[in-house]
Amino acid sequence: MGARYVYDFTEGAHLGRDLLGGKGVGLAEMTAIGLPVPAGFTVTTEACREYLRGRGELPPGLEEEIETHVARLEEATAKRFGDAANPLLLSVRSGAAISMPGMMDTILNLGLNDVAVEGLARATDNERFAFDAYRRLIQMYGDVVEGVEAQRFESELAALKDRRGVSQDVELGADDLRELTARFLEIYAEGAGHDFPQGARRQLERAVRAVFDSWDTPRAQVYRRANRIPDDLGTAVNVVQMVFGNTGDRSGTGVAFTRDPATGEPGMWGEFLVNAQGEDVVAGIRTPEPIADMRERFPEPYERLAETMARLEEHYREMQDIEFTIEDGALYILQTRTGKRTAAAAVRIAVDMVSEGLLNREEAVARIDPAQLDQLLHPMIDPAAEYEVAARGLNASPGAATGAIVLDADRAEEQGKGGEAVILVRPETTPDDIHGLIEAEGILTAHGGMTSHAAVVARGMGKPCVAGCDALAVDAGARRIRLGERELAEGDVLTIDGGSGEVIVGEVALVPPQIDENFETLLDWADEIRGLRVRANADTPEDAAKAREFGAEGIGLCRTEHMFMAEERLPHVRAMIMASSRDERRAELDRLLPFQQEDFEGIFEAMAGLPVTIRLLDPPLHEFLPPLEEAETDEMRRRIRALREANPMLGTRGCRLGLLYPEIYEMQVRAVVRAALAVADRTGEAPLVEIMHPLVGFAEELRRLRRLTLDTASAELEQADRQLDYHVGTMIELPRACIRADEIAAEADFFSFGTNDLTQTTLGFSRDDAEGKFLTRYLEDRVLAANPFETLDRGGVGDLMAIAVERARGVAPEIKLGICGEHGGDPGSVAFCHELGLDYVSCSPYRVPLARLAAAQAALAERGVVAVQVGG
Amino acid sequence: MGARYVYDFTEGAHLGRDLLGGKGVGLAEMTAIGLPVPAGFTVTTEACREYLRGRGELPPGLEEEIETHVARLEEATAKRFGDAANPLLLSVRSGAAISMPGMMDTILNLGLNDVAVEGLARATDNERFAFDAYRRLIQMYGDVVEGVEAQRFESELAALKDRRGVSQDVELGADDLRELTARFLEIYAEGAGHDFPQGARRQLERAVRAVFDSWDTPRAQVYRRANRIPDDLGTAVNVVQMVFGNTGDRSGTGVAFTRDPATGEPGMWGEFLVNAQGEDVVAGIRTPEPIADMRERFPEPYERLAETMARLEEHYREMQDIEFTIEDGALYILQTRTGKRTAAAAVRIAVDMVSEGLLNREEAVARIDPAQLDQLLHPMIDPAAEYEVAARGLNASPGAATGAIVLDADRAEEQGKGGEAVILVRPETTPDDIHGLIEAEGILTAHGGMTSHAAVVARGMGKPCVAGCDALAVDAGARRIRLGERELAEGDVLTIDGGSGEVIVGEVALVPPQIDENFETLLDWADEIRGLRVRANADTPEDAAKAREFGAEGIGLCRTEHMFMAEERLPHVRAMIMASSRDERRAELDRLLPFQQEDFEGIFEAMAGLPVTIRLLDPPLHEFLPPLEEAETDEMRRRIRALREANPMLGTRGCRLGLLYPEIYEMQVRAVVRAALAVADRTGEAPLVEIMHPLVGFAEELRRLRRLTLDTASAELEQADRQLDYHVGTMIELPRACIRADEIAAEADFFSFGTNDLTQTTLGFSRDDAEGKFLTRYLEDRVLAANPFETLDRGGVGDLMAIAVERARGVAPEIKLGICGEHGGDPGSVAFCHELGLDYVSCSPYRVPLARLAAAQAALAERGVVAVQVGG
Repeated sequence: MGARYVYDFTEGAHLGRDLLGGKGVGLAEMTAIGLPVPAGFTVTTEACREYLRGRGELPPGLEEEIETHVARLEEATAKRFGDAANPLLLSVRSGAAISMPGMMDTILNLGLNDVAVEGLARATDNERFAFDAYRRLIQMYGDVVEGVEAQRFESELAALKDRRGVSQDVELGADDLRELTARFLEIYAEGAGHDFPQGARRQLERAVRAVFDSWDTPRAQVYRRANRIPDDLGTAVNVVQMVFGNTGDRSGTGVAFTRDPATGEPGMWGEFLVNAQGEDVVAGIRTPEPIADMRERFPEPYERLAETMARLEEHYREMQDIEFTIEDGALYILQTRTGKRTAAAAVRIAVDMVSEGLLNREEAVARIDPAQLDQLLHPMIDPAAEYEVAARGLNASPGAATGAIVLDADRAEEQGKGGEAVILVRPETTPDDIHGLIEAEGILTAHGGMTSHAAVVARGMGKPCVAGCDALAVDAGARRIRLGERELAEGDVLTIDGGSGEVIVGEVALVPPQIDENFETLLDWADEIRGLRVRANADTPEDAAKAREFGAEGIGLCRTEHMFMAEERLPHVRAMIMASSRDERRAELDRLLPFQQEDFEGIFEAMAGLPVTIRLLDPPLHEFLPPLEEAETDEMRRRIRALREANPMLGTRGCRLGLLYPEIYEMQVRAVVRAALAVADRTGEAPLVEIMHPLVGFAEELRRLRRLTLDTASAELEQADRQLDYHVGTMIELPRACIRADEIAAEADFFSFGTNDLTQTTLGFSRDDAEGKFLTRYLEDRVLAANPFETLDRGGVGDLMAIAVERARGVAPEIKLGICGEHGGDPGSVAFCHELGLDYVSCSPYRVPLARLAAAQAALAERGVVAVQVGG
Repeated sequence: MGARYVYDFTEGAHLGRDLLGGKGVGLAEMTAIGLPVPAGFTVTTEACREYLRGRGELPPGLEEEIETHVARLEEATAKRFGDAANPLLLSVRSGAAISMPGMMDTILNLGLNDVAVEGLARATDNERFAFDAYRRLIQMYGDVVEGVEAQRFESELAALKDRRGVSQDVELGADDLRELTARFLEIYAEGAGHDFPQGARRQLERAVRAVFDSWDTPRAQVYRRANRIPDDLGTAVNVVQMVFGNTGDRSGTGVAFTRDPATGEPGMWGEFLVNAQGEDVVAGIRTPEPIADMRERFPEPYERLAETMARLEEHYREMQDIEFTIEDGALYILQTRTGKRTAAAAVRIAVDMVSEGLLNREEAVARIDPAQLDQLLHPMIDPAAEYEVAARGLNASPGAATGAIVLDADRAEEQGKGGEAVILVRPETTPDDIHGLIEAEGILTAHGGMTSHAAVVARGMGKPCVAGCDALAVDAGARRIRLGERELAEGDVLTIDGGSGEVIVGEVALVPPQIDENFETLLDWADEIRGLRVRANADTPEDAAKAREFGAEGIGLCRTEHMFMAEERLPHVRAMIMASSRDERRAELDRLLPFQQEDFEGIFEAMAGLPVTIRLLDPPLHEFLPPLEEAETDEMRRRIRALREANPMLGTRGCRLGLLYPEIYEMQVRAVVRAALAVADRTGEAPLVEIMHPLVGFAEELRRLRRLTLDTASAELEQADRQLDYHVGTMIELPRACIRADEIAAEADFFSFGTNDLTQTTLGFSRDDAEGKFLTRYLEDRVLAANPFETLDRGGVGDLMAIAVERARGVAPEIKLGICGEHGGDPGSVAFCHELGLDYVSCSPYRVPLARLAAAQAALAERGVVAVQVGG
């Protein structure tokens, strides 16, 4: 006997999502705990993998297994699949191990044909229903199996409604739908090149194949890449007895969450449509009613639904997202999965579940996806801003965004990748728009509800979305939109607030968000758990204050070059660079000193009592000079030419500047010391100063610069007759520095891994030249699984860091080790830093909460408490 | 009792050169074996180090020790130091552990003063001699101790000779010298600000200090840097009883070698001057007579000299270079050291000494400095060239050079560093010119003999030098020279042949040298000893043939991009880059294929039976496009702009090109396969082809490119219905490739370390931006001891290589490992490659012999046979 590929819902509860997919395992588990699930079975992901490996050959024995299980369904329902009089109808739904909402395909009402539709009409005494079901089958099957454009069917439907002078599908009568069905059969035959298949088993086989094939569609590939889902999982196929929400006014369909997915507020939350099939809700074509209204309309099913959902949450210890159908008053649950939610909701749910006794603190901390927290830390509209609301829609995904209107996904992708902030504005979105959604700052749709495609995807990505904005009309041909009273063109600027549903013409001031009480609680729990300290990268007193508010325990990287760029300072910087003698250069530097000191004072005050790492000047000097064509004098032109470099990344920068022009670093050290003394005087608390030398590759460089630092600081302190505790260290951002960390450690009080530059040199990737060029191709072609500038390259850069840590601690066990590249704010990289045994990570202020959580999760992982899989 | 700092020549023979310096230990050893050495003692290098550490304080007890040893000299010579009637006179000479010819300072005739000079005149009955000795003391002491310009004294001497109408110093009489002495005392007092010190002991103390201080003069530092001599050795000081070669016609002085230092021919070789002091020979002011003439003039001393030299060579088993003086017929040896020699001489001497039974083969191989061999492999004047000799001088250092005339060392340095070929043309050179000598292609002097400063330094550096060219007159003021009948200006082009002494106006064709019989013998011995294989980097059939002639055992790096640059090909390369579709690109590549195939065929034929590594296209495509301002079309301008990179070194190049434009690498692989088949047909011997992918950082890159290579080659072979053995491998030139050598090795048949780029990325040094900029400063300021692009950075790059070797061999013990960066031709780096266990090194064809020798020496070092120290 060969492998087994098919399991009935009554059999599979223990088999897990890897084999049955999320949808399949949910249906089996619900069946096992006695919830009202239609009968059905699941074809495993292994069958799909076999099929894909076999280049479209169904694995041997699969067809027979399916036949056996269809026979069991026939027995259970006392109907026959393909019967002409009272047919068993089936749906086919994909379901991968990791949720890919809207990406895979579904076909309903399999088993109908030209004869059976009449049988169904008689058996249900509902001709309208029977033809509605059949025309849906033709459309879905045509689209999914034969690639007949869905739009051709939709246009026909719209034209018919026009002719009848009605606006809703439900207003069409039985005759209308019979006529429409005939038309759909013609469209199918035209598009597919053959008549609609009348055999039920042939329909089923082709549908299963189509689901398998859908795993490799471009849109599925794009989604997987965006969500870092492996390509070789395959999808399961669920074959389910049809239940009908469209048999009349005693029927309906809906989706519901056990808690509010936007806020996390406890209590059932969702939407439903009377007399409709499930696809109508998700597609966002009709705008559904809130679930609360169901209580009045369907009191008994509503009660059953509430009980069922409570039971599900207890079972899963997780917020659930279900699809249900009411057929003539009877409730069926078609799917359950862990509910997608906003970051705010995720936090609130985790905290609430601890109060409710469903989770302990460690589980609550482990459960939050730190990457998602980013959305909580997105800007919102400034509460003090005055503005006029042009239109309102549903608050589908929180956060505010400003950008230029674009009307199609291709353009959104192009302009978004080009660095422009764009708002994608659409009647509704479909899975084909995914590449545009990824690049847009925010999404605005005219149709669709809180569970429409746009809303679900936007919440998953943490992007603002306003959906179902009735006042919006999109004229894609003219590249214009109407927004209430206003006419706007593509390219005009909009602001949307996905938290309130407001749409505003033009730009509105945005402010950074605050951390609410639940978030604070969760982060406090994380702080109790983690060992890794979290600092921020901040160059201004404002950023430092923000970082502290977000829980930063110091500054790990304060870049001093931005201070050189300000308008009133740049002339002195340029004069310094143009100086023809060291004395002249010193004179200009003396003029810059008070500015630097002032900046340092502000930062020290904001970080009172906490360590602040000041990095001395790093960029090549030519960055401070104007472009050649803007140079005002011949001398300036000569100097610009002399400073020009073939590869500035590997040129005269970092500590090389400090060795070539010691007077620059001397000035900076003096400014640091003076600022520290001034702040100590003013606040009574001396800052914990760390002076950091960039781009060291040789111990000798740091030996000399350490001496320069100590000599300069001592002279300042002696003159002021004062004491100051400070440390001298270096960035580790060259492969050689990692390799010779032992020698360099002998000269350093601390190391900070500069993983941006370390990635550039270790991989030989110039970030400027890689992103948007060969690196983008590498990611598209899957040469690389992740962008090494976002996710630390553990195999290369990470291994060099491990060598550095081992060698440095070998000679200097007490040396303080941290990281200040952008990876310091990437959760996976934070986990790696924990494994490496670093003392701290430093990241942008807005990523500090995320790093606090990721650090806690890394500590939990070490104790065996791993994150619960979110998504389902 | 404290440390002992002073040893008499009779005591020190066992103490070694580190403590006594080369000159001191030579004098002690000669004293021990009974050779005629004047009495004297040595102040140790340790005393110098103490003095330098103590910032100019003589170490405690030193003055007393010197006093004790002076007293012993007084006893031995029965004269008193400082005596007014018959004074003991002393010389003070520096002598470091490693020879630094002319770099340190000497003072003769210490002990004379205004009174003692009269005493000496009476005691010797030679007033002329006494005043000549005193005026020399004043000049040397003034120059060395007080920094009074030597030129001021020289001008005075020249003026006096003018007034007397004589051309030689010896033509001046006693009265003249008495007058000159009075004038010298005035010049001294003016320059030094005080009268010439009359106390002998004060003169001695100040002279010892001046020698110690001379260790840190800029010219000594430059010499040490150029010769990689550590800065912390210090110098010894030798205090020696004066003997006089200038007492009259029965006296003289000279330098002699035990064999000819230019050719290695056995037999005494040297020069002497009658009635002169040693400084007159070395300074090159008077042109001396050949040593053979001495036999007639001083028959008895000549015989003693010959016996002495035979004894010295037997003792040292090395060619010796001595200084001697004849005082009234008595021979004194003032110094012996290992003789500097040309590379050709070194080779011949080593081979001859094996025949003579002085050395065995291993010792002979170990003794040759491979770095010096470079000069044997320098170009010579094409024997077929016709040219007119404008002047002749002494053939002071072999090899030919062509370059622009420059008249001072500063300009030579500046233009030489700027990449211009220059010939430094001087009346004579002095140690102050060292920075110019380093950068010049060749040296031409009007005065001085085979042992003049210019000649000695040029031979050491392996640069051509023509010295003592009487027909040359330099007018430094007018920046012009006269050369025989011709008038030339600075900047005009000269060719010199240091092997023949010929000077030619304009450029003459140069040819590469051949390897002579002795060299062949030595290299054969080296080949028997070494384990490391030696290949060459060659891009053309001509270079491949040359490499094979020099003993290359294959090609380790054949770059294919040069083939793209040739005039008839570039238009197709550009059209290929501009192609708007893959098909169009393929069409242009098809046009390039025959050219590549032709090049490969030539190289395979030249290397028949030996492996050839072809590296696929490496440089960024923009290197093949014209500069933006020369672009002819808007499209070309757009493309140039699009391909522009911020850091091309880290951009779209190497295997990234092969992954982005697979059709380029496919064409190259096809050309390789077709060429291999054609050569197999023509010669009956299939070449051993290795196809190498550059700049791999990730195993996945090589996995794909290996597949592309195999697929393409298989298709070609299938079509031709042929078989071909070939290998696929990669350059290891990124730190990540070293770190993940295990994964990459799984995809590779061989690795070749590309240490040029590996150095750039590991150190973060762009070669273009480092050399001449911060790297030059780093070397000047001694942040780095050596240029890492010349000498492999063992601590950083080397350690990464060691990691790579270990990890690669861990998964693929049979993988072939080599190096093809420029370090493959650097002897120290070759030794490192041997230690690492690489299979081969690959270097430029002209460095192949050098690498063969270095590889043998590395194997010998492992067996404990280390190179004998050359220099002394």
